[in-house]
Amino acid sequence: MATHIDYPASMIRAAVLTISDRCSRAEREDLSGPALRTMLKAKLSAEIAAFDIVSDDPDAIAAQLTAWSHPDQKIDLILTTGGTGLAPRDNTPEAAKRVIEREHPGLLELARRRCYDKTPKTYLSRGISGTRNRTLIITLPGSPRGAGEMLEALLDILPHAIETVRGEVTDG
Amino acid sequence: MATHIDYPASMIRAAVLTISDRCSRAEREDLSGPALRTMLKAKLSAEIAAFDIVSDDPDAIAAQLTAWSHPDQKIDLILTTGGTGLAPRDNTPEAAKRVIEREHPGLLELARRRCYDKTPKTYLSRGISGTRNRTLIITLPGSPRGAGEMLEALLDILPHAIETVRGEVTDG
Amino acid sequence: MATHIDYPASMIRAAVLTISDRCSRAEREDLSGPALRTMLKAKLSAEIAAFDIVSDDPDAIAAQLTAWSHPDQKIDLILTTGGTGLAPRDNTPEAAKRVIEREHPGLLELARRRCYDKTPKTYLSRGISGTRNRTLIITLPGSPRGAGEMLEALLDILPHAIETVRGEVTDG
Repeated sequence: MATHIDYPASMIRAAVLTISDRCSRAEREDLSGPALRTMLKAKLSAEIAAFDIVSDDPDAIAAQLTAWSHPDQKIDLILTTGGTGLAPRDNTPEAAKRVIEREHPGLLELARRRCYDKTPKTYLSRGISGTRNRTLIITLPGSPRGAGEMLEALLDILPHAIETVRGEVTDG
Repeated sequence: MATHIDYPASMIRAAVLTISDRCSRAEREDLSGPALRTMLKAKLSAEIAAFDIVSDDPDAIAAQLTAWSHPDQKIDLILTTGGTGLAPRDNTPEAAKRVIEREHPGLLELARRRCYDKTPKTYLSRGISGTRNRTLIITLPGSPRGAGEMLEALLDILPHAIETVRGEVTDG
Repeated sequence: MATHIDYPASMIRAAVLTISDRCSRAEREDLSGPALRTMLKAKLSAEIAAFDIVSDDPDAIAAQLTAWSHPDQKIDLILTTGGTGLAPRDNTPEAAKRVIEREHPGLLELARRRCYDKTPKTYLSRGISGTRNRTLIITLPGSPRGAGEMLEALLDILPHAIETVRGEVTDG
């Protein structure tokens, strides 16, 4: 999959948010955020407009997503990593739902479908996606492997999705 | 797929709503609406109770869905075409959610699953489905090809779904 | 599928709720509830902490789910059977949404995916899942066959899901 990619007219501006209590307190090294940034640059020729680490606190998550999806930021894509599971502090989907204006169930449905053969546990992720203003938000799992596999599974479809969110093309 | 269809006891009454700013201003010909009506008649022996074109305005969409799903109309099935993508004016799922009382995630999940081999971009559609009163509402993409493929993918399952919504059969 | 199961550290405490107007009035025998309880014990070595039958009334459903997911009950898993279809009295997903704090779309997406080859109509079920406190709630169809197939399809993934909800392991 993801063999052919049609890049959009102008470079994709992306931001990556690591969501983890322990990483935010520097008790654990953030491996997923850097891995996603590397993949965005290498595979989508994206510009990393911003990246940060926040705790699993829903208010902190929602605030950062809101700030990055402000039209002034001109950020096309926000990837989050962490907090999509079932553990007591996993709040990312709920925090993202607060700020997402238009939900997009199909994107992560596709990612789970494509990741399943390699990783059946991909269906344990509660990740969601959707748009706020002209920014596409996708919530990925916290492990570097899980996050990377899901991003990989969406690479071929993301440029067209982003062009559409920008209003450059329409699907009718 | 859709090789065998068990028709319900009485004819399916359907309505088709084309949702498009340009079609509503007669700047573009509506090809999807007529294609869906033809398919409903040919493949499901359905009666077309009503059809119309509205703009992408969420209030206009919600008002038409509300009117057609009134019990007096006795409409079993409303198909919409258009506005399910990620473009800035694509509001159909949000408008439909306002009027839908019981969501049905599985129907479009099945349609995406079945359309994927031919059209991987089917997962870019944000279409949803659900019921209001005894009317099943399904939001399809705007292109004649995308809308037709998704309806085709659901033909075998729709008669049973409609019988159930009518209260003629139960799944327990 | 479900060939290898890693059991959690301590026994899974489960509850089974049959949701059916007719069963609640003893006009029909409840076959699904007992079948699920048998399968939970045989396949997951689970302890059945509680079981009951309620009508399709949404308030009754929500009240029972709320009571069983109270932390004092220490129930890991609630399975419901019935009311997930499209018939006029099928209210289980709407009642469950009232009490679920964190939705989990992937679990039943996986169940539908796995049941499809045997039972394409599995996609007609509107079942949802999610957590309230530290209890995982899954709404299964009403027929013994449909409910059993869906539970079977989730057996391999449930122990890890439950350990995560308990806070014993994290997915990061």
